[in-house]
Amino acid sequence: MKIICSKEQLMEGINIVQKAVPTKATLPILEGILLEAYDQFKMTGNDLELGIECFINADIMEKGSIVLNSKTFGDIVRRLPDSEVLIEVKENNTVIIECDNSHFELRGMPSDSFPSLPSIERVNMIKVSQKAVRDMIRQTLFAVSTDDNRPILTGSLIECIGNEITFVSIDGFRMAIRKNFNNEGFSEFSVVVPGKTLNEIVKILQPVDEDINIYSSQNQILFEIGNCRVVSRLLEGEYLNYKSIIPTEYETNVRLKTEDLLSSLERASLITSDEKKYPVKFSICDDKIIITSNTEIGAVREEIRVEVNGSNMEVGFNPRYFIEALKVIDDEIIDVYFNSSIGPCTIRPLEGDNFVYMILPVRIKND
Amino acid sequence: MKIICSKEQLMEGINIVQKAVPTKATLPILEGILLEAYDQFKMTGNDLELGIECFINADIMEKGSIVLNSKTFGDIVRRLPDSEVLIEVKENNTVIIECDNSHFELRGMPSDSFPSLPSIERVNMIKVSQKAVRDMIRQTLFAVSTDDNRPILTGSLIECIGNEITFVSIDGFRMAIRKNFNNEGFSEFSVVVPGKTLNEIVKILQPVDEDINIYSSQNQILFEIGNCRVVSRLLEGEYLNYKSIIPTEYETNVRLKTEDLLSSLERASLITSDEKKYPVKFSICDDKIIITSNTEIGAVREEIRVEVNGSNMEVGFNPRYFIEALKVIDDEIIDVYFNSSIGPCTIRPLEGDNFVYMILPVRIKND
Repeated sequence: MKIICSKEQLMEGINIVQKAVPTKATLPILEGILLEAYDQFKMTGNDLELGIECFINADIMEKGSIVLNSKTFGDIVRRLPDSEVLIEVKENNTVIIECDNSHFELRGMPSDSFPSLPSIERVNMIKVSQKAVRDMIRQTLFAVSTDDNRPILTGSLIECIGNEITFVSIDGFRMAIRKNFNNEGFSEFSVVVPGKTLNEIVKILQPVDEDINIYSSQNQILFEIGNCRVVSRLLEGEYLNYKSIIPTEYETNVRLKTEDLLSSLERASLITSDEKKYPVKFSICDDKIIITSNTEIGAVREEIRVEVNGSNMEVGFNPRYFIEALKVIDDEIIDVYFNSSIGPCTIRPLEGDNFVYMILPVRIKND
Repeated sequence: MKIICSKEQLMEGINIVQKAVPTKATLPILEGILLEAYDQFKMTGNDLELGIECFINADIMEKGSIVLNSKTFGDIVRRLPDSEVLIEVKENNTVIIECDNSHFELRGMPSDSFPSLPSIERVNMIKVSQKAVRDMIRQTLFAVSTDDNRPILTGSLIECIGNEITFVSIDGFRMAIRKNFNNEGFSEFSVVVPGKTLNEIVKILQPVDEDINIYSSQNQILFEIGNCRVVSRLLEGEYLNYKSIIPTEYETNVRLKTEDLLSSLERASLITSDEKKYPVKFSICDDKIIITSNTEIGAVREEIRVEVNGSNMEVGFNPRYFIEALKVIDDEIIDVYFNSSIGPCTIRPLEGDNFVYMILPVRIKND
């Protein structure tokens, strides 16, 4: 193999495929990046759950392939001058990397033992803008469960029905739902993608209108993003029937500025060092919410002006669940719907149903 | 105590005094910030080695004092809106912090058990610009020893003679010397300040021409920086006679661009994972330095165009010692003086003796 490409594009590609390379693996080959120069120059990272391949513009002078340790290769390229980089495989898998007056020789690994990406039948295709997918992941990922006892909840549900695509995450205490609409309609499917995969994909996606293609098979999902293809396994099993748990009624509706509630809760949570032990109390009365908490560290009282519709009430929450939802909401003003001191609370946009966040309350001692 | 001051100024003061507050201390009071409102409002942090006090503009409505946990107090103030903050001490050391619609109650600690800062006789005063002190610390601190077997070397020597002020750090493998001159002349003294103190002071200093006052007694040193006073203990003992170990002769002088050598060494060090085991070799010949290294990871060869004066030679170094010195040098072009493959190497400015960096070579195998 012998290729020449720009340092900048090489680095861009490495940064992307490295997201699928574990820093510590049982086999050294899995800590590597596969470089292949045939019709095009391509790099691949694959941790067996998640695989990413990326095509890079390059002059191919000799065809071939090699695997290089991802960290060493990435660190070296990052430090090279902004110029043309030559990569050449010599005898015994020795790899030469040359750029201006820098010359490296690394030991490569033969590419035949590198695990190839699973191929996916190109059916069940949907087309969505990068920005839309990025937002849907960003605005639901935080509510994915980290509890391995219910593996299905460690992923997000992606559901396509008619012209609606929906992302759902549930961790048992809260739920995040984000929808997007499309004029053309989608292939209908419903899959559960591991949170880890979405966490890497969201870093690759840019807030641009350009479309990406998503294909799903029974066990795998493929995201085609520009020159990159991301393949991930899917989680097996039945996802919760999330629609059945969204409350349809409410006792009190409060309309407020997202930022007001967020900053008050962030301050209040400073003294609730152990959130599970110390919830915050929302007291809704007339035209304000008063947030209070009493802990070993001290006491806090925050007052927010709001529009209230419905009866006054007191209800306790883990402040972190509210904070994480409020942080990803882009709308300046939101509606919060409360259902007594034991019923779930929902956060919704003023109009439409682009998002629903549901949070279960915590029992509070009345002091 | 009852005071009102702006959130911004309060935060600025907290950020500074927190540098003298340990995150974990044997006594809770040492994890606190002392607030005192008498003629002026003052905050103090003191970990018994290093003490910092800071005067803040405030309206004092009731005199008094209290100690608040530094982390809790700092976290709360950081999150407050940009507005006026009221701090009031009530019964049983309860402290009210109020700002707009936020209201906190914290448990304070009585101030009488807070260790007061040592007072220093205001003799041995020198006046230097903030920027000069900042540069002298920044450009020598990295060479302070971390080896507790020779405690005196865990500090930097500050020496004032005539109109010269000199900072010196030595760790046994390298030395950093930085000088500044003053027209007025200085009080003559020579003290060793703990590296830890200098590490905190350099964060407080700004790159401005404004003068600071430094006073030294036998055991303590005081830095007066604007509204703040930083007091530190000194290290006891005799510092090395550093002047006697600076080489006065050389075999080969190489003039080069600081940035060229730095970036080549940074790349070369990527494959010398264990620096002590794998030095880099400098081969000086004719009009270039060739830097090479061979390790388990691979081989590197970097070539730099330079001006050489003297004989060709080969000499090995721990690349980190060079990198750390080159990183803090502001001069674009420097002179490097080599003394055979076993003699110390020095880095100096093209003119004058504002700085001298000395690095001991490492024996290399010739392959």
